[in-house]
This record gives sequence, C-alpha cells and structure tokens, in this order.
Amino acid sequence: MEEKELLQPQATQCAPQQQPKLMDRIRSFPKDFADTGQLMISAKRWLTVSTEPVPDCDIVVMFPRDADKEFVAWCRHSLLNHVPDLTLRQVELQYSRCVALYVTASFRSLLKAADTVGLRKRLRSSYGGGYQEFTLEELDLFANGQSASDFFSSQERQGLVRHLLLSWRLEAANCWPGLSLTEQQPALPQLQVRGLVQAVFPLHCQRDLSRLQASWVGRLFRPQPLNAVQEYFGVKVALYFAWLGFYTMALLAPALVGAVAHFLSSSDAACGLLVCFNILWATVYLEMWKRHSSVLTYDWGTLDSGNTDLLDECRPLFKGQPSISRITGRVTLAYPAWKRLAIRYLISLPVIAACLAAVVCLMLLQFAFQDWITEMVTEKALPSVVDFAPKVTNALVISMCDYFYKGIAKWLNDLENIRVEESYRSHLIIKLVLFQSVNSFLSLFYVAFYRQDMSMLKQQLAALLLTRQIIDNIKEVGIPFVMSRIRNYKMSLDYERQKKRDSAEPDTAPDTEGSPGITQTEVEASLEAYDDPYEDYLEMFIQYGYMCMFSCALPLAGVFCLINNVMEIRSDAFKLCTGFRRPFGTKVSDIGVWQMALEGISCVAVTVNVALLGVSGAVSRWFPSLSPAQVVLLLVLFEHIVLVLKYIIAKAIPDVPHWIEEEIAITEHKKRAALKLQNRAHLRAKRESGSCSEG
Amino acid sequence: MEEKELLQPQATQCAPQQQPKLMDRIRSFPKDFADTGQLMISAKRWLTVSTEPVPDCDIVVMFPRDADKEFVAWCRHSLLNHVPDLTLRQVELQYSRCVALYVTASFRSLLKAADTVGLRKRLRSSYGGGYQEFTLEELDLFANGQSASDFFSSQERQGLVRHLLLSWRLEAANCWPGLSLTEQQPALPQLQVRGLVQAVFPLHCQRDLSRLQASWVGRLFRPQPLNAVQEYFGVKVALYFAWLGFYTMALLAPALVGAVAHFLSSSDAACGLLVCFNILWATVYLEMWKRHSSVLTYDWGTLDSGNTDLLDECRPLFKGQPSISRITGRVTLAYPAWKRLAIRYLISLPVIAACLAAVVCLMLLQFAFQDWITEMVTEKALPSVVDFAPKVTNALVISMCDYFYKGIAKWLNDLENIRVEESYRSHLIIKLVLFQSVNSFLSLFYVAFYRQDMSMLKQQLAALLLTRQIIDNIKEVGIPFVMSRIRNYKMSLDYERQKKRDSAEPDTAPDTEGSPGITQTEVEASLEAYDDPYEDYLEMFIQYGYMCMFSCALPLAGVFCLINNVMEIRSDAFKLCTGFRRPFGTKVSDIGVWQMALEGISCVAVTVNVALLGVSGAVSRWFPSLSPAQVVLLLVLFEHIVLVLKYIIAKAIPDVPHWIEEEIAITEHKKRAALKLQNRAHLRAKRESGSCSEG
Repeated sequence: MEEKELLQPQATQCAPQQQPKLMDRIRSFPKDFADTGQLMISAKRWLTVSTEPVPDCDIVVMFPRDADKEFVAWCRHSLLNHVPDLTLRQVELQYSRCVALYVTASFRSLLKAADTVGLRKRLRSSYGGGYQEFTLEELDLFANGQSASDFFSSQERQGLVRHLLLSWRLEAANCWPGLSLTEQQPALPQLQVRGLVQAVFPLHCQRDLSRLQASWVGRLFRPQPLNAVQEYFGVKVALYFAWLGFYTMALLAPALVGAVAHFLSSSDAACGLLVCFNILWATVYLEMWKRHSSVLTYDWGTLDSGNTDLLDECRPLFKGQPSISRITGRVTLAYPAWKRLAIRYLISLPVIAACLAAVVCLMLLQFAFQDWITEMVTEKALPSVVDFAPKVTNALVISMCDYFYKGIAKWLNDLENIRVEESYRSHLIIKLVLFQSVNSFLSLFYVAFYRQDMSMLKQQLAALLLTRQIIDNIKEVGIPFVMSRIRNYKMSLDYERQKKRDSAEPDTAPDTEGSPGITQTEVEASLEAYDDPYEDYLEMFIQYGYMCMFSCALPLAGVFCLINNVMEIRSDAFKLCTGFRRPFGTKVSDIGVWQMALEGISCVAVTVNVALLGVSGAVSRWFPSLSPAQVVLLLVLFEHIVLVLKYIIAKAIPDVPHWIEEEIAITEHKKRAALKLQNRAHLRAKRESGSCSEG
Repeated sequence: MEEKELLQPQATQCAPQQQPKLMDRIRSFPKDFADTGQLMISAKRWLTVSTEPVPDCDIVVMFPRDADKEFVAWCRHSLLNHVPDLTLRQVELQYSRCVALYVTASFRSLLKAADTVGLRKRLRSSYGGGYQEFTLEELDLFANGQSASDFFSSQERQGLVRHLLLSWRLEAANCWPGLSLTEQQPALPQLQVRGLVQAVFPLHCQRDLSRLQASWVGRLFRPQPLNAVQEYFGVKVALYFAWLGFYTMALLAPALVGAVAHFLSSSDAACGLLVCFNILWATVYLEMWKRHSSVLTYDWGTLDSGNTDLLDECRPLFKGQPSISRITGRVTLAYPAWKRLAIRYLISLPVIAACLAAVVCLMLLQFAFQDWITEMVTEKALPSVVDFAPKVTNALVISMCDYFYKGIAKWLNDLENIRVEESYRSHLIIKLVLFQSVNSFLSLFYVAFYRQDMSMLKQQLAALLLTRQIIDNIKEVGIPFVMSRIRNYKMSLDYERQKKRDSAEPDTAPDTEGSPGITQTEVEASLEAYDDPYEDYLEMFIQYGYMCMFSCALPLAGVFCLINNVMEIRSDAFKLCTGFRRPFGTKVSDIGVWQMALEGISCVAVTVNVALLGVSGAVSRWFPSLSPAQVVLLLVLFEHIVLVLKYIIAKAIPDVPHWIEEEIAITEHKKRAALKLQNRAHLRAKRESGSCSEG
C-alpha cells in the first residue's frame, strides 16, 4: 500500500490546477494570434503572455536544426535502454524546426535516484528536523515524504533527472556509426561537445519564476527572498545574492565614515581615519559574513554535508582510464594525481606567470605612451583631442587581453583535468582572479606608488569606479534586455511568415504532437546558459578591492559602491530571471574560493593602506623629527601590529555561531542514538524471526 | 553462548602465565628479604626486583594515612551502590599505613562502558579495518572482539574504569556528614581536591613497561617504538615523542647548513644564507610534520574522530548549573558562554598583559643594572667578582616570575571554567607559552635590536642554549633519578625497622588481606603524576624559537640542538618510564595548540630574521648606493615576499597525504553502504517477524 502511493503519477512541474488555464491559452493562442496582423502587438504579447509552458518536462534535450532523424531515434532508444527510469517525449518544435526530447521521471524513480545520489533532505521534526542523506527505506522519516508532488522541489527534480541522464553511457559495440565516445564517460556531454546535441537545459517554471520575480526584482529596498531563490535557483546562486546583499549592507559603514572623512578639513586626518577604518572593516566584515553564511547554509542543509571530494561524482568531461575505484568498488575514471600536479606546476604556473608579466609590460608601455602623448599635447605638438587616444587604446588592449586570457585559463584548467566539478571551478576562478586583479589594480598601484600622486590616484579611482559601474550595468542589463526584445520581435516576425507560408500550402503543415506556436522551450533555448555566478562575483571582487585598498584616497568611494550595489542586486536578479536559461541547482557549503580571495585581498589591503599613508606624507608631517628610515620603520611596525590584530580578530570571532554548533551536535547525537537503537532492534528482530522459524 | 563468552572473568592486567612467578616471588619475598641484613642490597633489589606487581587492579584509589576507616567504608559502599559495574578490593598498605581501593571491572562491564563512551576500536579487516565507535551489538565486527584478555589494551581498560569511577555522583541526601559536594559533578575529583582522597592513579604494568623500556630508552640511535608507546601511554604522549623525534631528524638540515655557514669566510654571506634557509626550513618542517602526524594519528584511529567539543564529556571540575542538556537530553552542568568570554576578555586578558608588561620592565631594569655593574667593574670601582651578581639575580628573578606566573595562569584558567578537558589544557598552554616566550626571548631581542650587537647576541645565544640544555637535563633526569634512589633507600630502611618492630611483638602483626612488603602501589604513589607533556613541549618550543629566530647569529646552534635532542628523546623517555606515575591515556588527533604556537613563532621568525639581516648591516654592504630608508624598504619588500611564499608553500603541501584521504573516504563509503544494508535488513526482518506472528 506504501508501494501504491509511491507509484502514483508524479506531479507536473507546475501545480496541476494551473494546467487547464494554460492549456486553454495554448489552444486559443494561434487563433487570436492570427487575428492580429500587427507585429508589434504580438511582439509585446510574447513578453506579456510569456509563451506556452511545457507540462511533464524537467529537462529538455535539444538537437540541432539539421539533426538526422534516425540519430535522434537512436539516441532516444539507447537512452531508454540504458536508463529505463526516464520518461521521454519527442517533440518537433514548430518555429525553430528542431527536435527536442522532453525528459522527466516517475516519482518512484526520482526517489531511487535520490537514494543513490544521497540527496540531503530534511528529516521530520519528530526525528530531529536536521538534514540527512535520503535513503529509500527511511522515506517516512523525511518531511512530507508521502506526497509525491511536494517532496522534491522543481530544482531537486531537475537535478535528479540530470543525474539519470548523465548515467547514460555508451559502449563502442552498439554506438552510433562513426561516433567514437570514451566509454565510462557520460554520453550526453560528449555529444554536446561534438555538437550532435545542441543543448541540455532545465525549463523555467513560469509560475514559480514570476512569483519569485515579483517579490525579488522590483523591490529595491526590501530584503531578498533568499529562501525562495534557493528553492528555485539552488544554494550556489542564492549564496551569491546573500553575499551581495550582506556586502551591500556592510558598505553602509564605510559610506558613512567616508562621507564624514570627505568633509574633514585636514586630508591627512581623513586619510589616517580611513586607513584604520578600512582595515578594521574589511576584517570584521569578512568574519561576520562567514557566520552569516554558515547560518544560511545550515538552513539549506549544506553546511555540515561532510562530503570528501573523493566521494563526489567526477566531472562529466573528466578524462581518465576506466578502472575499479578503490573507494566505491565501482568502475570509474582514474587519473594519476602526479600528472595533474606536474601540469599545474610545470605548465599552468609558468604560462600564467608569463601572461601576467606580459600584461604588466603592456600596461607600463601604455602608461609611457600616455605620458608621452600628454607631454606632446601640453607642448602643443599635438592637438588636445589626441589626448584621449591612449585611454581608448588602453580600454581596447585591456579587453583584448581579458578575452585571450580567459581562453588560456579555460584551456589550462581543462588540461589539468580536475576530477570534481567544484574544484574545477575554483581553480578556474583562481586563475581568472589573478589576472583580473592585475588588470584592474595595476594602474592604481602605478599611480599610487610609482607616481606617488594622490590627487591623480583619486581621479583615476573615481573614473574607474564610475565607468566600470555604468559599463557593467549596461552590459548586464541593458544589452541583454534590448537583445531579448529584438529576438522576440524577430521570432514573431519569422513565425508570421511561416504561418503565412504554411497556410498557403496547408498540405505541408506538419502535424506533430508538438504544440503549435513558439514554445517556452524555443524561447529559452535562444537564451544563454548561466552556469555559475563567477562573473558577478568577479565584478564585486574588483569593487571590493578598490574599496578596501584605495578608498582612503577617495573617501566617497563607499557611497558610490553602496549606491551601485543597491541597484546591482536587483539588476543581477532581473538578469538571472529573464536573460538566461534556468541553471541546474548546485549545492555548496560556502562561497568557497571567493572567501579565500576576499581574505587575501583584505590582507594585501593592510599593506597598501599603510603604504598609502606613507606616500601621502601624513606621517612625516605628524612626526617631523623622524628621519625617512625611521618613518618607514614606524609604518612597518604599524603594519605588523595591524596584521597581528587582524589575525587575532579573525580567530576571536568564531566562524560558526554557537547555536548552530549546538544544533549540529544535537543532530549528530540523535543520529548516533538512532544508529544504536537500530542495531538493537535489528538484533531483536533477528532473534524473533529465528525463534519463530524454529517453532 | 556469545553471552557466556562475554561473562568469563576478565584477564588480569598482566598476562596470567606471568602471575605464578610473581606470586611466588611475593611469598618468598619477605623471607629472603629478612635473611639479608644489608640495606644497600635490598635497596638495590627495590630497583631490580621492581616490587610486587598488583593483580586484578586497573586503578588505585588511595586514601590519606589518617583517613577515617568509616569514611573509607562509606566511600566503598556508595561507590558500589552508584556504579555496580565496578569491582573493588580494599587493601591496607603495610609500609605507608594507608588504605587503598583496587578498582577494576569485569570484561562485560568494560564493554558496556566502551559502548557508552563510544570508544573507537579497529574494525575487522573484513569490515574495512578502519576505526569505528564501539557498540556492544556489533562486538563481533571488531578486531579480536571474542577474546576478553586482548580486546582492550591495559591503557583502554584504565580509561574505561576511570570513566566508571567518574560516573560516581553524590546527592546531598545520602552524603557523608559535613561533606558538601556539588551534585552532578563527579564525586571523586572533589574528594581529591578536599584532600579526602590522596590519589587516584592507574598502575604500571611492570612487564609491558620493562619491555617498552628495553626497546625505547636505551637505544640512542634506534627509531622509537612509537606504536608500543601509544599502546602503553596513549596517543597524546606518543605524539609528543613522535614530534620530538621528527623535529630532531629535521634538525639535521640546519645543523649541516649551520656547520657549512660556520666555516664560510664572510659572515655576511653566512648570515644571508642562514636567514633564507631558516625561513624555508621552518615552513617546510612544520608542513611535513602535519603530514607525518596525520599518518600516525590515522594509524592510531584518532585522526578522523569527528568529535565536536559539545559532545565531549565535561571536565570533572567544571562548575555550572545542573540542567538538562539540549544535546544529549541528559542532565549536565551548563555554564553561560558569555560569562566565560567576559572573564576571558575582561579579566584574563588584562591580567596577563599586566604580567607580561611587568616582566618586560623587570628585565629592562635588569639590563640597566647589568650595564651599570659592568661599567663600574671596568672602572675598577667594584671587584670583578661582582660582575656575576646581575646574572645570578637575573636567574633568580626569572625563576621567581616563572613560578608566580604559573600560579596566576592556572588560577585564571580555572576562573574561565572551560567545559572540555582538551580546550582547558590548550588555554592554559597558550597562557604559559606567551609568558615563556617573553621570558626566554626578550633578552635576545634587547641585545639584537636595541643594542644591535651581533657578537654579543652570538655569545648570549650560545650561553642560553647550553645552560638551558644542561640545567634542563639535570632537572629532568638527574634529580628525579637521585631522588628515587634516595626514596627507595629510605623506604627499605623504614621497612627494615618496621619488620624488626613487628617481629618484636608478633601479636600486633597486622594480618590484612594486603600482601606483605612494599607494594608497587606504594612505590608509585610516592611518584609525581604526569598529566600532560606540556612541560616537555614548552622546553622544545623555546629551543625551536632560538633555532629559527636567532640561529643566523650562531650558525652552530643547529648542531647544539641536534646533539641535545638526541639525548633529550631518551632522557624524556627514561623520565616517563621511571620517574612518574603512569598517566591516563588521552586521545588527540594532533599536537593541537602546539602546532599553532610553532606556526606562530615561525611567522615571527621571518620578520626577526629579516630584521637581523638589516641589523647585521649586510644589506648596506651589499648595496652601498642605497639610502637607509631604501635599505629598510628593500628588507620589508623581501620580508613580504617571503611571507607570501611561506603561505603558498603551506597551502601547496596538503596536510593529509592523499592515500589517507582515500582510506578515510573508503571507510566513509563502507559505513554508508553498511547503514543502507542495515536498513534494508532491518525492514525485511520487520516484515518477516510480522508475517510469522500473523501466521
């Protein structure tokens, strides 16, 4: 009877009661569409009506337009052979003329998958309420374990279906002719790399999304609905927005102090005040964030997920020799660690060092060029217009370097062939952070410590902050928005034409089971994939760097950043909700490598701030009697004391609040107790069954 | 039948086959003792025959000589009432005229205790071989779980018996009249504090000890039998000796380089070489130690014992309000964290700061005095003999400070009322380390950076190293050894007299069940307790400080330390085996706070070394063109680069070797699999029993 319940048909992605309305709309759609000849209206409608949602689909596997029908059939066939748990539905998409497989799975198979994956679900409050790895036998221990529709969030469903999809392997024996895939490696990603599959992505759940958007994007000064974000986009994305929000709140302090310092009479005093404050702020902020993040991830059940990398699945595109894992005993891909290290230290490291060196040289040349030009201009040897030339070239050079370096970093990272997805990402991020820091901070270092010109530093910092913010916002929101408008307009236009053509010769009108009109699938397929919030992190990381390293030169920096970030939160949210495909949810226990990067730069900031204090000449003005050497020694002493204090503060503030440690201890204790009980019961059961079999 | 096996009488502490011989000796003892009139011989015999071992005793509870017989009886009674698992045997000790309770427990109750404590035991290789918390039901999963005699090591037995002893609580209702004990707090430690119980200590196992000694103490250049040490003294002590051994090995490098530098022509080159080498060595050594330690603790099953403090038992003397623990649901003592923090930051911190400041002042005065005296002497105003006066006073002052400070530190630590034993110890150690560092390094800092006199630094360092080493060795080995000789001699003397007296009036000859002669108990009771190797750590910590901070001034320091430590290992071992009571084994996963302390000082060492390089004037000789300020800047730059490199090296060397991570992952995976299997089996058993009860 328990079984029966398990086997009932699973809920569609959006709630059933929603379906009829949608279906009506779908039917009514092409009709009332045909009525209107006006394209602009229809174009508007694309945005308002938000296209037809797709029922019973968690993940779309989309084939390219020119895909061989037989190949698709073969894929479908082999997929079902290898992963019988999946439910496939083939659809011919009207507008894009593509074939897509709508993939989902029954509740029963989802449960099985959750068991194998060891998905962490919340226990019933009566069992301690904490999170625990899901096991099929203990289904009734877990919160609402009996309701097929609510047990998994749409995001979890998609994750599990994806897991099932990735378990599709191909042997060379019965492989598609002319297609050579590495066995043991998931087939789908390889097909994607080879371009035989255009895209694999989960669909947005229009209803949840619009609900989320309403409470998230519009409200400029409301707290973000982080739990809803986590429910829908997964922990990783939610954690980024949590961090961004927390950082923005934290910016209130430097904004305030900066404003005060801005109106101080003596610039020395202002500088001194800001230096001390920045250092303190950077430290305390980072520590408090750790605590805050642990609270969030505890609520989301990823804090104490004691997963060792070695037990994680390997990356879909991880290469290696198929061999029996010492750990799980199953066949997995093995790759010698020494090889990876060799590549990392003998190839990656030198290459990256070279790249950085190259960039540094380029920028120094750039500065020399700038100086030469300005000199010429001041000597009237050149028209003053030319003065802008270096800035333009600079911008061009930087963006070019950026573009090339990204390619190199990606290439090196793939070369290192890192086993687990997360650490693959972290290593990529580290590479990018290194470069971006040089790219963004070098000019300021040059001005501050080579030119030693504080006023110029101030100008440059202001320029960088403002231009960056404006450009980024345009890049992030403006362009995508306009693009989507255009795309939608174009789509509707094309579709009009098609319709006309089809109606002209009605016999050729294809009648596949695919719904008419432009489906949600097609619209979302036309969007970009959003695999990781690292772009957004990077942007904020650079801003944070400006803040805590140089803001003593520009007291108002805090205010600028604060204003920018208040909008940044919402623009990023908007971007994520409208501009991209839905990402697969990723579970992380913290912001990982970014925490490291932020701590790193906040350490550098100490030195930079003290050095700026020295450069500003404030110290020598305060203690005129000191010799230059003594001034330097004094500053160094100050720096060391500050660094030690920083360390002590970091140690003194525990990373995890006490009550959470307690909670974790409670669940731990409950688990142990449960385990013992189980053993006892187990033994008793054994004895009983033994005795009654004898009797 | 399984039960029967469990209930068989437990093995005596030493192997049975050993017993008869011992018993014979015991019987024969007084006789052949009486024959010889010569005391020296008998005195020798105390050492060679090593007294009569005590059978069936894990822990001795010793009452003071003047203990009220009824009180003892009451204790025994109430102890048995509260902890029926214990087996007590009351003995009147002939020589010391004290009453002692010999405490042990049946194998069955030991198993029960191991279950409640969650003692980590090694699983059978067929079950993965890793360590796991012992549970009574799974006895047969554990290595030699069927043999009552070999399952627990004598050290584990003692630990478990101690746990049972500590579970003895007293209600105010039926307490000894006039005795007020805090309920919920273990009774025994309180009685000890009140002096109603003289000592509670485990007995040495003569056979194991002598075997251990043979393979450990004598062999100057053999590797230490660390596993045997761990078996006998516990992980904590073994880890100290492992660390000491590893450190001594590591000293080979600086000894070699130092010797080379010593014979270099230019002192600048030597200094530069040593500075760079010391920094590198300190870092690499510490990282390699972490790896080595994790290998050891993995073998000893304490590495991945993921115990949160909150699940650990609280310290016997931990004060607090009895309340129901949110975690275990049992009644425990609760103490508000904020109170502890308040005390720590509002009392401990200022007091310690004051103490340190005081010591600094004292020493500065001391230096001034020294200068004045030497001046006087050089001016012939005072006889040259007086020149030693300051040194003597200095030594006196230092040792007095040391004595007082220890008291203060202990007092503050008790005031903080830390819950768990381990963190209590760490906090005490931190306090002591702070003071000792000031005490030991200040004079060198003074000479190096105030006097800036490298040759004087060299002399002072040499003096400090050698005197310290000689004094410490005398303190540690010489004195205890002589003392024990004297004590034994005195004992035998007294005993002679008693014997004579007793034989004079034979009717008063006491015939208690206690064995005649001087028992092992009495001899060991007369020794000091060895609760923690922190004294030994501290000594080595200071030496390490001299090594990595100042050895560039005295190239041969490495050689001195190496020679000293080769002997230190054995002398500490000798001290531990002969000079102290047997300690209760403590399980730790690493050297804990000492790792932190060593890393801290190795960071300071970077700065100190660079500063010494500056003081030595080598840089300005190498780059004569630089201005003083530039020299300082250059040095600072160098220091920062080194610190960053240090950090990178520390990151690049993983703390736990890959294969151990793999092993841990394997056990983890096996556990999960086992858990799932268990659930399945459990359910199946349920169903079967259900069905057969229906049928």
